[in-house]
Amino acid sequence: MEMDETLLMIPGPTRVAQRVLKAMSENIVNHRSALFGRILTETTEMMSDVFRTSNKSYLLTGSGTAAMEAAVANIIEPGDKILNVVGGKFGQRFAQIVEAFGGESITIDVEWGKAVNPDDIGYTLEENDDIKAVTVVHNETSTGVANPIREIGKIMDDYDALYIVDTVSSLGGDEVDVESYGIDICVTGSQKCLAAPPGMAAITLSNDAWRVIEAVDNPRTYYLNLKKYRKSGDAEPPETPYTPAVSLIYAMHEALKVIMEEGLSNRIKRHKIAAEATRNAVKALDLELFPDEAVSSTTVTAVNLPEGVTDGELRGTMRNKYHVELAGGQDHLKGRIFRIGHMGNITHRELITTFSALEMTLRELGFEVEMGEAVAAVADTYLPEDL
Amino acid sequence: MEMDETLLMIPGPTRVAQRVLKAMSENIVNHRSALFGRILTETTEMMSDVFRTSNKSYLLTGSGTAAMEAAVANIIEPGDKILNVVGGKFGQRFAQIVEAFGGESITIDVEWGKAVNPDDIGYTLEENDDIKAVTVVHNETSTGVANPIREIGKIMDDYDALYIVDTVSSLGGDEVDVESYGIDICVTGSQKCLAAPPGMAAITLSNDAWRVIEAVDNPRTYYLNLKKYRKSGDAEPPETPYTPAVSLIYAMHEALKVIMEEGLSNRIKRHKIAAEATRNAVKALDLELFPDEAVSSTTVTAVNLPEGVTDGELRGTMRNKYHVELAGGQDHLKGRIFRIGHMGNITHRELITTFSALEMTLRELGFEVEMGEAVAAVADTYLPEDL
Repeated sequence: MEMDETLLMIPGPTRVAQRVLKAMSENIVNHRSALFGRILTETTEMMSDVFRTSNKSYLLTGSGTAAMEAAVANIIEPGDKILNVVGGKFGQRFAQIVEAFGGESITIDVEWGKAVNPDDIGYTLEENDDIKAVTVVHNETSTGVANPIREIGKIMDDYDALYIVDTVSSLGGDEVDVESYGIDICVTGSQKCLAAPPGMAAITLSNDAWRVIEAVDNPRTYYLNLKKYRKSGDAEPPETPYTPAVSLIYAMHEALKVIMEEGLSNRIKRHKIAAEATRNAVKALDLELFPDEAVSSTTVTAVNLPEGVTDGELRGTMRNKYHVELAGGQDHLKGRIFRIGHMGNITHRELITTFSALEMTLRELGFEVEMGEAVAAVADTYLPEDL
Repeated sequence: MEMDETLLMIPGPTRVAQRVLKAMSENIVNHRSALFGRILTETTEMMSDVFRTSNKSYLLTGSGTAAMEAAVANIIEPGDKILNVVGGKFGQRFAQIVEAFGGESITIDVEWGKAVNPDDIGYTLEENDDIKAVTVVHNETSTGVANPIREIGKIMDDYDALYIVDTVSSLGGDEVDVESYGIDICVTGSQKCLAAPPGMAAITLSNDAWRVIEAVDNPRTYYLNLKKYRKSGDAEPPETPYTPAVSLIYAMHEALKVIMEEGLSNRIKRHKIAAEATRNAVKALDLELFPDEAVSSTTVTAVNLPEGVTDGELRGTMRNKYHVELAGGQDHLKGRIFRIGHMGNITHRELITTFSALEMTLRELGFEVEMGEAVAAVADTYLPEDL
């Protein structure tokens, strides 16, 4: 199998530490054994710590989308109204899932690049007292926008609708406090800020969420039926209803240990500095941020593609000549923006490499660039005590 | 993380070769890159070779159950009749999935331990000309029975209903020829005879199956929507609709290479000899096979628990003292049978270890056992040219 050493600066999958990759070469154990039960318990307990909740967490073998589907498919009955905040590709996805499972999606459409106004959610709930749940994507990976999930949580306090939040590309990198924000169902993925390999998702649910799920008679879901995950998780030894990706759970266990060793608050602070350094470097290059800077993401920065260069030229040169992989735009933003992921294990070092490569790439593509100015902007953002 | 070296003789997950485990420590690459596209293409092409089909195969991040759900959820509309052959836990599962997705499950109930009579499928299709599909579990892991999927295929030739076969615990270990048996949808899992780590499933579909899928307006599925897998698989570079378990695809790639190196026919022959050796050793110990021997599985042998010993005593001693893990019974067979998996990389060596441990375990539990007789029965089954 051919392999390469490209530096991944995309919004997931992110670079995985050697100790986490190595954890996957451990022998496979029986997934219905006491030993595996202990590994599963330790992993899900660390997951709940990262979610900042005292509720149990469950691991799903699947992508973040599987967890989004689980969040919706288990609570919905035909015709149920779900309010979806749509300001990017992943907000859209929640709405598509609601429709696929027979619900009625009511959307608050937010211009891509802007955050939702929490009051708009309040108004919509006020006008529609039969909305069963509200979905919000915390960090819209497609636009580089962070939505104000804490403030939305305060609004949601006044309503019965469940509060569902996708923290796939924020958990472990930006502020998420499931319990204090009043989040009822929170989902995430392994391959973003948690810096584990892709293929696992995690979900945690409040008692209110479980009450809604219990009242759904015949959910159109089997593999992702959360009642089965709860029952298996409560068994002795704890297990999963279907054979899980054992090796990926080893990797999650190790990746979560890395997070505990760094400290969740330190990790979030590191992400905030990396995001600031990225924005400063982008500005030093006279490039434009795509989103409103006030709501720009802590884990991925979206940048307008400068005039006179194509996405293929910019990202192709970065990848083929400098071995740094950036992400392009999605949907109507394809060819209009590029995105720099700075989530997971990203430090000053990877940003310096990325921006040095970007300086050289832009020079090669005919832009006037003073070599070192973006790199200096990164370096200037970090204080000695941040490193 | 604590680990152990127990020999897994369960019907999945099976022992994974070091070279396959090591493949997972390669760096994660972008799942939307040309490099990953090549790895994905090579892996799915080898999958189709193992399925023995010229149709494309698709990898799903999830367990075998996810692939069973994909097979059903994509073809079903509310009220559709699906014929499920139920002779064990996995046959039941197909029926449950049909009901969960709004279909009407018509079952042929087969006594656990016996195989279905293909003519019964013909009679049922004759009486119900609106049956949309028939599901058969090739190898009923819960009972150690192999159903006659070739003969069923001949019957199915006369009817329009789709022929769906679960080869989760047989593909790569027993005869499966998707194209010549006329199978429309065939599903399998990574962690059984393919000897890869758990967490991936594979599916392949005939043109007839795609025609049915295309006619379903609004399938109640999103993460497992097969039309999206086809579209992404046909993209350039080929990809998956949602972030896949990249490391597990590396492992599948390597595990399938191992199969190609051994040769699929050699591998199936090796499984047949291991099954025969297992049955001979069971008989040498005066233990009884649970299923009809004529239809007993090539990959897992179910044995009646002898009187005077509990499942916990027998399997507990095997595990704790001899570090050999056997499987117990499921559902109403719990405490009545134990199961020996001999799938994947199992050779003469692991069977000798297992039966020597079983001899000592039975002696310790008060049975009269002549040491070495089961081991000799294993050795006698293998001809020098088999090794």
